[in-house]
This record gives sequence, C-alpha cells and structure tokens, in this order.
Amino acid sequence: MKLATLKDGTRDGKLAVVSSDLMMFADAGHIAATLQGALDNWADCGPDLQAEYERLEIGEIAGHPFDEAQTMSPLPRAYQWADGSAYVNHVELVRRARNAEMPETFWTDPLMYQGGSDTFIGPHDPIRFPADAVPAWGIDMEGEIAVIVDDTPMGISPEAAREKIRLVMLVNDVSLRGLIPAELAKGFGFFQSKPSSAFSPVAVSPDELGDAWDGGKLSLPLMIDYNGEPFGRADAGTDMTFDFGQLIAHAAKTRNLAAGTIIGSGTVSNKDKDGSPGRPVAEGGLGYSCIAEIRMIETIADGKPSTPFMAFGDTVRIEMKDRQGQSVFGAIEQTVEKA
Amino acid sequence: MKLATLKDGTRDGKLAVVSSDLMMFADAGHIAATLQGALDNWADCGPDLQAEYERLEIGEIAGHPFDEAQTMSPLPRAYQWADGSAYVNHVELVRRARNAEMPETFWTDPLMYQGGSDTFIGPHDPIRFPADAVPAWGIDMEGEIAVIVDDTPMGISPEAAREKIRLVMLVNDVSLRGLIPAELAKGFGFFQSKPSSAFSPVAVSPDELGDAWDGGKLSLPLMIDYNGEPFGRADAGTDMTFDFGQLIAHAAKTRNLAAGTIIGSGTVSNKDKDGSPGRPVAEGGLGYSCIAEIRMIETIADGKPSTPFMAFGDTVRIEMKDRQGQSVFGAIEQTVEKA
Repeated sequence: MKLATLKDGTRDGKLAVVSSDLMMFADAGHIAATLQGALDNWADCGPDLQAEYERLEIGEIAGHPFDEAQTMSPLPRAYQWADGSAYVNHVELVRRARNAEMPETFWTDPLMYQGGSDTFIGPHDPIRFPADAVPAWGIDMEGEIAVIVDDTPMGISPEAAREKIRLVMLVNDVSLRGLIPAELAKGFGFFQSKPSSAFSPVAVSPDELGDAWDGGKLSLPLMIDYNGEPFGRADAGTDMTFDFGQLIAHAAKTRNLAAGTIIGSGTVSNKDKDGSPGRPVAEGGLGYSCIAEIRMIETIADGKPSTPFMAFGDTVRIEMKDRQGQSVFGAIEQTVEKA
Repeated sequence: MKLATLKDGTRDGKLAVVSSDLMMFADAGHIAATLQGALDNWADCGPDLQAEYERLEIGEIAGHPFDEAQTMSPLPRAYQWADGSAYVNHVELVRRARNAEMPETFWTDPLMYQGGSDTFIGPHDPIRFPADAVPAWGIDMEGEIAVIVDDTPMGISPEAAREKIRLVMLVNDVSLRGLIPAELAKGFGFFQSKPSSAFSPVAVSPDELGDAWDGGKLSLPLMIDYNGEPFGRADAGTDMTFDFGQLIAHAAKTRNLAAGTIIGSGTVSNKDKDGSPGRPVAEGGLGYSCIAEIRMIETIADGKPSTPFMAFGDTVRIEMKDRQGQSVFGAIEQTVEKA
C-alpha cells in the first residue's frame, strides 16, 4: 500500500491511502487520524489501511485526485530520526578528500547519528534559511532511503529487525557543510549542521516494492536532479555495506525503539564500474546524491572543489521509479529560499 | 503550576495537575488528553491548566492522592530531546582526566547533542540492560535540569528564547561510559552510549520556582543520592556557563523548534569554594551529579579511578527541594536491573 499525510492546517496532517500510480487518494481518517496513530496500533490499522488501499486500487471507492504538493512528510514530526551512513564508499571519499585514513572498523560497525525529528519539511515545501546562510553554511542535499519501524526491542538481531520494517520512504537529509567541520570537531556530533529534513510524498509498504526489495535493501536507481539536470542515478541496492536490518539492530543495541522510529540509509553512493569514484551523469556515470561528493571528487582530481553548494533559487528533485517507469514514492522537489 | 503524566496503559499516559506539595492530583483530561496535546495548543491549554491547578490548591476540587511511582516521564515520548553541556567545569574535568586541552571556544559556544526521545523511562521505573552490560557498558547517571519549550523560530535570540520556556523538569540522562570513547571517535556523536533518559514525576511552570528562577537558570541544589547516601549537592545555578536562553538559541540556530522540544542543561557541576574540583559530600564538598566526575577527580589525583560504575541493584535518587524544604519536582528514583 501507499500512504500519504495531507496538509489540513494541523501539526500532524490527515492520513490518506494513495493509489499505486499516485493518481488518486482516499481519506483514511476512519482508520487512524494520523500516520503516527496508525503506527501506534499497526496490528489493527495496518490490515485496515491495506484493505482500504485495495478498494481504492480496484475502484470500489472513488477517491480524489492526488496532488503531491499538498502533502506533508508522511510523519510531519516523529519521535525518532536516526540516520546511518551505510554507503561506506561515500565515507571513504570524504576521508580521501581530506587525506585521512578511514578506520577499517567502518566496514563492520555502522556509523549513525541522531537527527532532529520535530519539524520535518513537506516534500514540495521550500528549504528556508536566512540571507547570510549563502554561501557560508554550505547548503547541500543528501538523497537517501529511509524506513519506518514498529516497536523494536533492545538487542534485536539484524534478521529479526528486518521484520519490523513497516514503511519505506525517500529522504532529503538537508546538510550544512559549512558548519560540519567545526561542529564535529567539538566531539558531540551533528546538531546545527543537520537542519530539518524532508521525506517523499508517499510512504510505501515493503510488499509494494516487489523483487526490488530483498527485506533489507532497495535495488532501484535514486534519481537526483539538480536545477533540472540529471545529477545522480546511483542504485540504492549497490554498495550498501549495511542493510536496514543491520542499521535497525545498531540503533536498538542499548534501548528499545518506539513505533514510528525512522531509520535512514545515509547518502546513496555507488562506485563506478571500474571501481573509481563516480563520474558525472552527463559523462555516462552514476553521478552523486549530494553536492559534497562531486566536490570531493573534484578535490581529489584538482586539489580543490569547483561546484558550489546550493544558493537561493537552486532546486533539487529526488525520485525513484520502478522497472516499469512508475514513480514509487512521488518526488521530493524543493527550492532553497530566503527565510 | 505542576503537571504530571499518569500511567494508564497508553503510550502517552494521561495529563494531571498536581498540588504544589505533591500530595494530590486532579485529572486534566478535559483540558488536554496528554501533555504534548496541551503544548501543541498552549495559548488555550496553559491558562486552563493553571486555573485547574489553582482550584486544586484551594480545595475547590477534591483531587486524589498523588503517587510518584504511578507517573511516566511528563512527556513519555517527545519530538525532540537536545541536551547541552552548560556546566563547562564538568567538560574541563573530562579533558583534564585524559590530559587533553579544552578549546577556549568551549566557554563561548555551547556543546549540545541530539538525544533519542522516543522511549523515555518513568521516573520510578528501573533502568534495564542485558546481563553483559555490567561492567562493560559503564552505566552512569547524569543529574540535570531540563526545560520544555513552545514553538521557537529559527534564529531566535537568547533573550527571546527565555520567553519560550513553558515547563521545567529534572532529568537522569543515563549514559554508557564504556561505549562513549569508541562512539565519539567515529565522529558522529553519541548514539548507543546515550540510551533512554528519565524525567522527574512532575514538570513545573517557571513561576512556581519563585526567585530561584531568573528566567534562564535555576538556583537550587540538585540532590543526588547514590545507594541511599548523599552523592551530589551541586547548585544548578552556579557555574552554569550557558543559561537556558543561550541553549535554546543554540538549538534553534538553523531550524525551528516544535512545541514540546526538551532542552537539557547537561550534568550539573560546581567547582569547590577554593576553585578545586568538587570534594565528596561526606567530606563537606558539593559532590557529583554523575559517577564519571568522581572517577575523573580520582584519576587526576591517583592516576586511576576507584569508584566503579553502576551494577545491577544500584540505585540513584535525584531530587530538588525549595528553600522551605519542599520537593519541587518529586524524585527520580531508579534501580539498575537485568533486562
């Protein structure tokens, strides 16, 4: 099934089921007022939402035209947003660009940070920052996959953790590269450098993904367009060192995770066919899911980056299509604007 | 006013007003079902809760006997928990114990980490970990003050941020010292080393604190008892380098904060009168608000720590009394137990 949260002037929006072709929606308020409400009682609400979705699919209920621009992030606010960095290729590039060795343990022990989850941005809403944020803050997008999990007990195994995945989404994990070095040097991780993220218009259940979903990875290209041009086409199932089962188990090592916890993959990143870092899409490569990555490759090649970070008016579009060319999650489409 | 969230089998509990002497409570479900619900609409619910509290105080409504053990954390789950480290004395001791210089900017730029907020523990509920967590994980308490804020816009000034404080609480920020060094070395901050925290039975409005509250700091001793013995008596208003206005403004630099965001002070820590690190309470000192601090002082003095971290069966009690000896927030009282 596909679920969306529609803008209605409230903090949590209203829950809807959306047809698989993203053309129609039907109100799901009689099952649960909000997506968090459904996740709080998934054993009951999950099957009811699935049945409603099927009725919409076969035309048993009429539905209304679905407009992605009228959606909030599926969870407009969440109790937890924990973002991994599962594409270790990306992490290795970061290190190479600054001539630092990457510890070997990065291939076996996932990186994860705790993100802010109280004010997610709508998928078609602007990314707003004050005038002095450009260029100093280094505004960047990060195209990622994320899952929403059910209640998950402390100490769960990666295998069992896969069974806790209820929904899958795309993310734009907005990052402020200009603030990261000083903030990480303080030792407490990201805070100001990771402002509010945006999620795709629609969250989908894993069964909707067919054989592109193996229970822990989603094997489809993540399409990033930057200012209307193809920028990234990396496959989210390739070079993902830790699958979602491993990421969830990592998050749950020392505590329970509550229903509605969102776990992110980190920036999707593929090595090129010859093992070299990615080339631009225009040159036949797989491109990049964030600007930082092309800047790292430029730095490795030329000693300095040439692609600037985002300025006011720049746009990013993040989408994923299935093998039939149908948009799976709808598109995140955002413009950087002055607050 | 004083507010509590009572256990009722649901995830968010039910909202109650509590008498200032913590003897009686009255159900506040007719004003808002949950504390988050009240915070979502504080302009209406805040005055109504205040009025209900006043009716309980003068006996106009009867109320029921209040039992701290029947409370959840005031917000059993929250959309954001951001914890500062405002007592720079504590940070300086951490550094001295490992012979590291503390950057001068630590006196002017607050440290803050993003905490998990989906599964807070009840104030009288056990802290549960698996058998192999002792001694390897280094279980510790951290006694802190925290505030709950209203909607707060990006870029707010420290002065304006003070006006966003709606409620004040105590916190036990449970920390796993054995996991911190390796986790921080990875560069992404705390995750597994900061499991679920617990908050005091009661959250109080700032006006309830009288002249102990100056709008940004709470000047009363934080009483930490460890296994029934006095362990810490540091004053929360002393040596607090950054007040709550500054901490909130730091959190809001690059994003809006949603109503219900919790901002913590970090471990309360005082220098002794002669400027030396704190001495034990039994020796007339102000003691410590976490075990790590006495271990750092032991390390500076003896080259190694002698006080072990918490084991199964160890208990911590965190409380604050006003100048008349009345418990302000009720007590956090927790025992470490095997999961």
